[in-house]
Amino acid sequence: MPKRSLKPSLDWLLVLVPVAVVLEVVNGPELAIFLTSAAAILPLAGLIGRATEQLALHTGPRVGGLVNATFGNVTELIIAVFLLLEDEVAIVKASLTGSILGNLLLVLGVSFLAGGLRHEEQSYNAQSASVHASSLALAVTGLLMPALFALTTDTASFFQREVVSAAVAAVLIALYAAALVFTLVTHERLFRTPQEHEEPTWSRRRAVGMLLLATVVVALMSEFLVGSLEPAIESLGLSELFVGLILIPIIGNAAEHSSAVLFAMRNKVDITLEIAIGSSTQIALFVAPLLVFISLLVGHPMDFVFSTFEVAAVGLSTLLVTQIANDGRSNWLEGAQLIGAYLIMAASFFFVEHLAF
Amino acid sequence: MPKRSLKPSLDWLLVLVPVAVVLEVVNGPELAIFLTSAAAILPLAGLIGRATEQLALHTGPRVGGLVNATFGNVTELIIAVFLLLEDEVAIVKASLTGSILGNLLLVLGVSFLAGGLRHEEQSYNAQSASVHASSLALAVTGLLMPALFALTTDTASFFQREVVSAAVAAVLIALYAAALVFTLVTHERLFRTPQEHEEPTWSRRRAVGMLLLATVVVALMSEFLVGSLEPAIESLGLSELFVGLILIPIIGNAAEHSSAVLFAMRNKVDITLEIAIGSSTQIALFVAPLLVFISLLVGHPMDFVFSTFEVAAVGLSTLLVTQIANDGRSNWLEGAQLIGAYLIMAASFFFVEHLAF
Amino acid sequence: MPKRSLKPSLDWLLVLVPVAVVLEVVNGPELAIFLTSAAAILPLAGLIGRATEQLALHTGPRVGGLVNATFGNVTELIIAVFLLLEDEVAIVKASLTGSILGNLLLVLGVSFLAGGLRHEEQSYNAQSASVHASSLALAVTGLLMPALFALTTDTASFFQREVVSAAVAAVLIALYAAALVFTLVTHERLFRTPQEHEEPTWSRRRAVGMLLLATVVVALMSEFLVGSLEPAIESLGLSELFVGLILIPIIGNAAEHSSAVLFAMRNKVDITLEIAIGSSTQIALFVAPLLVFISLLVGHPMDFVFSTFEVAAVGLSTLLVTQIANDGRSNWLEGAQLIGAYLIMAASFFFVEHLAF
Repeated sequence: MPKRSLKPSLDWLLVLVPVAVVLEVVNGPELAIFLTSAAAILPLAGLIGRATEQLALHTGPRVGGLVNATFGNVTELIIAVFLLLEDEVAIVKASLTGSILGNLLLVLGVSFLAGGLRHEEQSYNAQSASVHASSLALAVTGLLMPALFALTTDTASFFQREVVSAAVAAVLIALYAAALVFTLVTHERLFRTPQEHEEPTWSRRRAVGMLLLATVVVALMSEFLVGSLEPAIESLGLSELFVGLILIPIIGNAAEHSSAVLFAMRNKVDITLEIAIGSSTQIALFVAPLLVFISLLVGHPMDFVFSTFEVAAVGLSTLLVTQIANDGRSNWLEGAQLIGAYLIMAASFFFVEHLAF
Repeated sequence: MPKRSLKPSLDWLLVLVPVAVVLEVVNGPELAIFLTSAAAILPLAGLIGRATEQLALHTGPRVGGLVNATFGNVTELIIAVFLLLEDEVAIVKASLTGSILGNLLLVLGVSFLAGGLRHEEQSYNAQSASVHASSLALAVTGLLMPALFALTTDTASFFQREVVSAAVAAVLIALYAAALVFTLVTHERLFRTPQEHEEPTWSRRRAVGMLLLATVVVALMSEFLVGSLEPAIESLGLSELFVGLILIPIIGNAAEHSSAVLFAMRNKVDITLEIAIGSSTQIALFVAPLLVFISLLVGHPMDFVFSTFEVAAVGLSTLLVTQIANDGRSNWLEGAQLIGAYLIMAASFFFVEHLAF
Repeated sequence: MPKRSLKPSLDWLLVLVPVAVVLEVVNGPELAIFLTSAAAILPLAGLIGRATEQLALHTGPRVGGLVNATFGNVTELIIAVFLLLEDEVAIVKASLTGSILGNLLLVLGVSFLAGGLRHEEQSYNAQSASVHASSLALAVTGLLMPALFALTTDTASFFQREVVSAAVAAVLIALYAAALVFTLVTHERLFRTPQEHEEPTWSRRRAVGMLLLATVVVALMSEFLVGSLEPAIESLGLSELFVGLILIPIIGNAAEHSSAVLFAMRNKVDITLEIAIGSSTQIALFVAPLLVFISLLVGHPMDFVFSTFEVAAVGLSTLLVTQIANDGRSNWLEGAQLIGAYLIMAASFFFVEHLAF
């Protein structure tokens, strides 16, 4: 299992946790609450990542893989739930898309670029990349078909949209589970990366405690963040789309992202791919579908109908990453191309206020 | 040439042939005629398949390949012609799409899953899969461009749509013929699968006789089927789209489908691919274009303009199958993913009544 | 660097240069001016190609590659600029699309077909083909995203469209430059084709002189061509779309195209790919984006928003070429399939007058 320990520590930002609490209690300015809680989430997400890995080292690779696969995007999930409670469905959807795009293009691109500047060519397990590519192609199918359903049948009732969304979400979650069984049980052999035996530095109790504690604090910070979102983005002059596509994915993933880049620089591209593409497929096949069901539970239903723009962006990213990663090798140009694709999308999204269809 | 002998025989269903005839003669209930004729086609299609193979064993691989390539989907072609005579153009188109999707996703998926549960990894001729993938990409081109033409020029006259359709259909048929020349003549060497010499068990005369007889009876059953279609689907509460996309492809292909799965379980995935993908490309590059010309002859013109939904579904299936099959290996997860994609499409189609554009 | 010397010489057409000049001076019939100037450009484009190669032989492979990459499509660029000066923006865009499609499908198709009829299978550097495929996928991203932006936000102001277009164009040019650095500097080793040392037959002075002279004469002919375009296409009964998609790409590329085919027949498919795919990526990542900026300079702004039809055609061609070229081998069937795809597109475009969206 990847060790995602982060060298350039963001831990000092933890000092913002009490600051955010005080600001909230004294009813401080919304913008200050927004910024401090957002910044406080960065090291907390990193902490969740570290605790997850330490726990995984205690449980052995199989259960550890399951733990990673379940808690890998827990920060994003928590923020999304609080957004749903405020009925910010469009922002949740944008944050899911943004997270997929950010991981596939920006994180992978910066990793390949940084790694490629140090190493002429880097290689990785093409078989593993191929499983990821199939999962991404499935994710695109899961995003495109309900969108087409909504586009072609403008008379679709709320009930019909929900049924289609729930069915598609259920299939995606089942396939996510199937992929886990494949990589952790039946074909685990193929995905074993030769790596030194690593000893856990935290006790099992400490790992579990940290995981719980960090999760609770992330939840608290997320509540502050979402509560101050509307006034904050108004005073900052940002569009909701920008917040969803760019800001929230960065807050939820920054720690993970820097790990991916560091591993690429150390020529361990397999771990980079596991983090970047693995995180994308986790969002697409697990977190996003799960939110469909959670949204029903919390009484603010979110369907699985994404906008054409979002579907096209995820589809293009998938094609690009598949084309680039299929040969099991990477270099700096491929990194630059992925970053370029991200910039092209960002430029094209820039003036869009709402993703109408 | 693949031997498609079907173990779990459906031959006992042949008893329904006289039942259907009697029901039709005595003007029995439409629903009963519909169900008996539909069920009677299942073993007849299997019989056509067996007769074709036996004939192929007599004629040698080259002519045999041509026979298979021409008669492989004759059941579907016959049903389609009777549907055209009733001017059920939308159902014909849906049945073509449904047949492609069913072969690419469901049949291949069940085969990979069933084969993968018995064998850790199965391998097949990647070169052959690659030729199929190019043919599928061509098929998508042939489906998408006329659809775009119709979408962008809403003023397109009937005449213009027919000319574009006929031109595209002619190109596709020419390319289908070219692929046959390639696999059976100029590059036959590459596609030869090492297999035990097989002796025909039927005489040439018997094979030809059976082929003719079964084809005539299929035609009769198809006439009954189509004649009772409208009242039957009304009393069953099915939508026309469901009938076209799901029911008719199953009726026409069930025998073939079970063969594909059986061959995968016996670890002969090359034959499975030949049946599943080969049948899809045959529909897309030969049967569907041929129906454009037949439809003109029978006076119920069918253009080659498919709905966005259909084009997208075939396009996604092609991407998925190409991604999965390009490495010449399969496993149970890939099977599950293909089935999952089929379920996602089925769920998204479920509430759609008409494929408007 | 490829030697693109053209065997079946078109040089005798140079005699049309003075004819076109005389016709223009004496105010001859527009149609005659159009035809003579168009025909005169064919050998001039070939001359530019030869001068570029000779110059490249003097400067060594690295600078030579840069010279080829910059002057490779100079004829098309010049014609485009004159078209912009006449505000024929739609024709310029169509000519860019047509040039990409023509290179990817027609030129590559004819080359693979002609080469494959002489050689059972031809092989080429798959690594090089893979870099091209990534560049093409990027090009599709660059075409699709601004088109989606324009489609989803019908309220987009002129200013917004220009900003998005300029940003996307800048990213594409930067990535084109990056790919040059990759292939000519940092990873030049990978792209070196083993080839006999070739001596320049022209002196450096003669090469530069020819390059300048031919460029100036091409500019003159282009001015005549564009000036007589409107009346000529009217009297010939052609649509503007046909002129842009088919005629202008042929005029600008004929010399290059015949070289590509000749190299394939001589079993030097690497050079064929370099010409055909290389020229396409050059148009998509360099010439087209450059024209966005040039169009602003000359006061007839052209945005980077292409029609759905054009984006889909380029996208499909990219998928097809990627699928076909990824294995580093070609045969006559693949050639026929590419030509078939071109014919399908041509048939679907045939009745379209304007590419509205």
